[in-house]
Amino acid sequence: GAGVDNDLYINQAIVFIEDAIQYRSINHRVDSKSLWLYRWYYSRTCQWILSLTITVILALAFVEEPSSLTITSDVRYRLPAWNPPCGLTESMELLCFLVFVIDVSVKSYLIGWKEFWKNKWLMAYILTLIVSFADWIVSLSFFCKESVRIRRLLRPFFLLQNSSMMKKTLKSINSTLPEMASVLLLLAVHLSLFTMFAMLLFARTKDNQQDKEWVVYFRNLPDSLTSLLVLLTTANNPDVMIPAYSKNRAYSIFFILFTVLGNLFLMNLLTAIIYNQFRGYLLKSVQSSLFRRRLGIRAAFEVLSSLKETPASAQQSCVSVGALLQVLQKAEMDSRCKQAIMRSLKMCSCDQLSAAQFQKLFEELDKDAIKQHPPSPEYQSHFMQKMQFAFGHPYFGYLGNVVALANIISICVVLVMDADKQPSERDDFFLGAINCFFILYYLLEMLLKILAMGLKRYLSYPSNRFDGLLTVILLILEIATFAVYGFPHPGWRPEFMGLLSLWDMVRLVNMLIVFRFLRIIPNMKFMALVVTTLLDLVKNLRAFAGILVVVFYAFAITGIMLFKGAVVPLGNTSSSSIFQGKNVISWCSAQAEVIYCLLYVLSVHLICRWAKIYFVAWWLISSVIWVNLFVALLLENFIHKWDRRCQRESLSDIEYQRTVELMFRDVLEEPTEEELMEKLHQHPHLHLCR
Amino acid sequence: GAGVDNDLYINQAIVFIEDAIQYRSINHRVDSKSLWLYRWYYSRTCQWILSLTITVILALAFVEEPSSLTITSDVRYRLPAWNPPCGLTESMELLCFLVFVIDVSVKSYLIGWKEFWKNKWLMAYILTLIVSFADWIVSLSFFCKESVRIRRLLRPFFLLQNSSMMKKTLKSINSTLPEMASVLLLLAVHLSLFTMFAMLLFARTKDNQQDKEWVVYFRNLPDSLTSLLVLLTTANNPDVMIPAYSKNRAYSIFFILFTVLGNLFLMNLLTAIIYNQFRGYLLKSVQSSLFRRRLGIRAAFEVLSSLKETPASAQQSCVSVGALLQVLQKAEMDSRCKQAIMRSLKMCSCDQLSAAQFQKLFEELDKDAIKQHPPSPEYQSHFMQKMQFAFGHPYFGYLGNVVALANIISICVVLVMDADKQPSERDDFFLGAINCFFILYYLLEMLLKILAMGLKRYLSYPSNRFDGLLTVILLILEIATFAVYGFPHPGWRPEFMGLLSLWDMVRLVNMLIVFRFLRIIPNMKFMALVVTTLLDLVKNLRAFAGILVVVFYAFAITGIMLFKGAVVPLGNTSSSSIFQGKNVISWCSAQAEVIYCLLYVLSVHLICRWAKIYFVAWWLISSVIWVNLFVALLLENFIHKWDRRCQRESLSDIEYQRTVELMFRDVLEEPTEEELMEKLHQHPHLHLCR
Repeated sequence: GAGVDNDLYINQAIVFIEDAIQYRSINHRVDSKSLWLYRWYYSRTCQWILSLTITVILALAFVEEPSSLTITSDVRYRLPAWNPPCGLTESMELLCFLVFVIDVSVKSYLIGWKEFWKNKWLMAYILTLIVSFADWIVSLSFFCKESVRIRRLLRPFFLLQNSSMMKKTLKSINSTLPEMASVLLLLAVHLSLFTMFAMLLFARTKDNQQDKEWVVYFRNLPDSLTSLLVLLTTANNPDVMIPAYSKNRAYSIFFILFTVLGNLFLMNLLTAIIYNQFRGYLLKSVQSSLFRRRLGIRAAFEVLSSLKETPASAQQSCVSVGALLQVLQKAEMDSRCKQAIMRSLKMCSCDQLSAAQFQKLFEELDKDAIKQHPPSPEYQSHFMQKMQFAFGHPYFGYLGNVVALANIISICVVLVMDADKQPSERDDFFLGAINCFFILYYLLEMLLKILAMGLKRYLSYPSNRFDGLLTVILLILEIATFAVYGFPHPGWRPEFMGLLSLWDMVRLVNMLIVFRFLRIIPNMKFMALVVTTLLDLVKNLRAFAGILVVVFYAFAITGIMLFKGAVVPLGNTSSSSIFQGKNVISWCSAQAEVIYCLLYVLSVHLICRWAKIYFVAWWLISSVIWVNLFVALLLENFIHKWDRRCQRESLSDIEYQRTVELMFRDVLEEPTEEELMEKLHQHPHLHLCR
Repeated sequence: GAGVDNDLYINQAIVFIEDAIQYRSINHRVDSKSLWLYRWYYSRTCQWILSLTITVILALAFVEEPSSLTITSDVRYRLPAWNPPCGLTESMELLCFLVFVIDVSVKSYLIGWKEFWKNKWLMAYILTLIVSFADWIVSLSFFCKESVRIRRLLRPFFLLQNSSMMKKTLKSINSTLPEMASVLLLLAVHLSLFTMFAMLLFARTKDNQQDKEWVVYFRNLPDSLTSLLVLLTTANNPDVMIPAYSKNRAYSIFFILFTVLGNLFLMNLLTAIIYNQFRGYLLKSVQSSLFRRRLGIRAAFEVLSSLKETPASAQQSCVSVGALLQVLQKAEMDSRCKQAIMRSLKMCSCDQLSAAQFQKLFEELDKDAIKQHPPSPEYQSHFMQKMQFAFGHPYFGYLGNVVALANIISICVVLVMDADKQPSERDDFFLGAINCFFILYYLLEMLLKILAMGLKRYLSYPSNRFDGLLTVILLILEIATFAVYGFPHPGWRPEFMGLLSLWDMVRLVNMLIVFRFLRIIPNMKFMALVVTTLLDLVKNLRAFAGILVVVFYAFAITGIMLFKGAVVPLGNTSSSSIFQGKNVISWCSAQAEVIYCLLYVLSVHLICRWAKIYFVAWWLISSVIWVNLFVALLLENFIHKWDRRCQRESLSDIEYQRTVELMFRDVLEEPTEEELMEKLHQHPHLHLCR
């Protein structure tokens, strides 16, 4: 009947508006049951469970068998890591697989069969699950003693497929690959030509004194190639050229030519290519997000306009305000936005909304929240008003900065004076007394500021929150110190008592004071700009960081599989550097600049062929490509921000905008009505009347 | 009289047009004698003498007393460098000073007194000359035994002041300095805060086994600062963290945080800032060049229009074609441009030229020379035509590439096989025979191509010239080898004869063959793009390279003055690495990536305070700032080119445009008539009638 239809339309509109808010695609089933399933699937609880499952399955690697999660990384000293019994991690894995199976089936059902066959990500998801499950069965049937576990390598895929941003980013990285491959090919040609030159230049001679270069670096083809590859990472520069340079200065021309061509030109060419690619990409991605939002809102308008209440006589389709209010109340969205939309709906005073009016209402979603700080308290007493003026004044904040600087300098002086003293000679009185004084000042500053601004206004500034929190922690630490060790006095050198020694307490306090010094940042204009750029970057980089985690995870697992048992403790007699091979590998897994690991590992003679290939691949991906991606994003973000800063020099009070969407707002193109309607008519499940 | 006036006007027009061609300012004296002096000063001979003088005075450092221009750089083995007698280099210096005095007086006279007082560069020039001369007198009065020679440090100034591009670039680097200083300040804050953290974190403990990190890297404030500074250059990564990491994995967080913040964020921020600054700058500089050109042409028009021949009745001022032809014949300019302008003058068929027509004529100057290759010869015989088709076809070129590749591979195989053989075991027969065959093929290929294309057309392609030259050299080398050592046969291992041993000859041939393989570059589209970008970059970088030379020179001289006698041969008993301190310094002077020198020198315990400051300054300027400038320029160039390539995908036959001016042509704004006339009326010496 009409009522049921109306309910369906209202529900559709709610889901479409939620899609618009979350920048989701609207191409899903739109019947009542599917809508319920869809809202359930995208509810916070469900998404949270899914994220937890992904975290759990990724974290399993830390406790599974060849794990190295111990405090010390030195193979000689560390205790054997805890080894879970067979079946424990496996049963957790089974649980995770179950969640993934539900996830993939709900997703597949919701987009419908037709779309499913076009969606390669979903197919890959199902395939991954099947392979993982098969591997799991194999694992159990061997009682966890099997040597290779493929499913570990597949785990990062679960992280990848769950984030649309990451999928998009991966797609764009993928589209840069051909050009990157060209540069890498060029690099390979460069490397091989120079290797041949080097082998001809530094050939073996009859005089053994003269061919040091040949003996150490260019003995044969693999050696030469490695020497020059490492020179490309600049890690063995200038060692590699010293023997030849000692013989004849002219040999340096070869190395300079190689370095300039390889490092300065070709490596930076990679940066240029990636920057050039991503310059357009970020904008395009934001543009498509905008399109999705407008499409969702338009779809909501269309379904609402087909409600039976609307007068059929109207020429243009339109939506009644009542229906929209109904939808708004049920839709999940930011309460600030909801209120703003309701307010403008009431102000509009008309009864019917056209498509343009409807879109305009939802433009509130694109806007920043302009933060308003609560007002200061109004004091009656004249004295209090004067106090308020004095301690609410920026100069009082500057005084605080100066005091913090003085504290830092005093700590620095003490550190320099104590640098060479034995721990037993150290007298903690001076530092203790100074810190006590400064912490009292910080407390006073905090209290006076709260007095002047009121607690609410004080807490509404992030810098004050940072300040206050650290002051409170410092105060607690200081009180704890006095409670355990008594007040400082000359020769204050008590023995170890309680949880931490006095020396550790003092160090901790000092570190916190150094950390607290960062409060000066917002006071310096340029620093503030840089820091906000960096914060933005971190936000925009989440997708990249995710992909990086995926790559790191895969490399770490491969590394563990490849080098399992390659490094064994040889006892104290052998050279200590070789022990750290495994540490280096696990450390590499945690650190981007693995090029030094590469060198390090090569230098500890772990030069089996597989290790070499592994580390070169790792260097290329983590150091070269990822760092360049990062530089490209930083350039993009920074240059946009910089331009904006120059434009808005006067309006310095405006809070910085944080999202990519807002950064590009002035460049974005609004989709036209025709584009939206065409897209809507292509919807696989929604059949509009017109 | 009118004739004298007319002559003056004609001469003025000639000079203005030459100014326009060379992008020179037109603000110089314009009376007859000054014009003659001006043309003389900017004549090729004069400018060549000036350049030669600058080269000579800069090159003097290589032969002056603390020079290290010897073949080997090893202090133990090398002979004492040639020490010129006192007065030889000094008299050459005096000659150079004389030339500079003439240069500065002519320059000052030509721009006039009023302008002279505004020109800081000229004042600095005179000051430099005075100081240098005073130092020269001191030097002579001490009979060249004085310890400090200030004038050496001042020498690069002569290079700097002679190039307007370099002055402009320096100005723009100067305008970037405040922002760079902000980032450097940020870097300093980052470094000092982390140093304090590190000193608190890795403090001395009672257990001597536990504080390895403290002993090696964080013993006191200077040590900690150095450790972290070197970590910022990533040179001691991961060594610096291994002791702490062995103790507790969590310590790596400190180092990762430091590296990510410092290296990834702050260092790349420098790139972003410099790129952002230079993005605008390059365009602005090209725009001002364009303005100078248009202004010169307009000035020529104005003086020509005040010739007495022109009818006074004309409403608009205009120029007779005859006068322009007269000017064109006398002006020095590219003959291709001159002919093109003459041709269009004849085609125009009107008698008088308006200002717009006049400007339009000279637009030829902005255009590229579109290279036309001479036609192939036309053969009568059918057989010859077929030959021509076959060997003129691109496939024949590809075949040549394949053969070159085969040659490279064969050399590579022989190198790998011979890698570990003693020189006495080596049999050169195989390589000799192979190379003989390949060189014959190269000769045949060259001759056939000449046959098909004709000598002129063959030589008009740069790739063919490269090819042909190398083939001829290879042929000569091969004939020389056979003449001295006879034809190759099994066991072809003759003793040393003539200038080079057979083995050296073969190596030289092989290197040339490897070098010749670069002919494949133009055949690969992407490679060709990259290579042309790099070539462009080299052209655009001349100004930067000049400034780099200035900086290098100043640093090298400072280094020689600071470390004179710091490194003395200690005999064979001491460790060999310390001998190379001086080499490293001189090598640093020749190489941009001094950051490794920094590490190297620090590692050979040359850690006096001055050396540290010197090397940190050097690292900042050469590695950080200059490399970033380079990256910025590369990004700029490459992105422009890339965009252009995408636009003109179809027109692949067009030769790439080479100059910055042309790269930006579509973005440049033409100056308006009002701007030009206003500037003309501000001319200090030219007084236009209107």
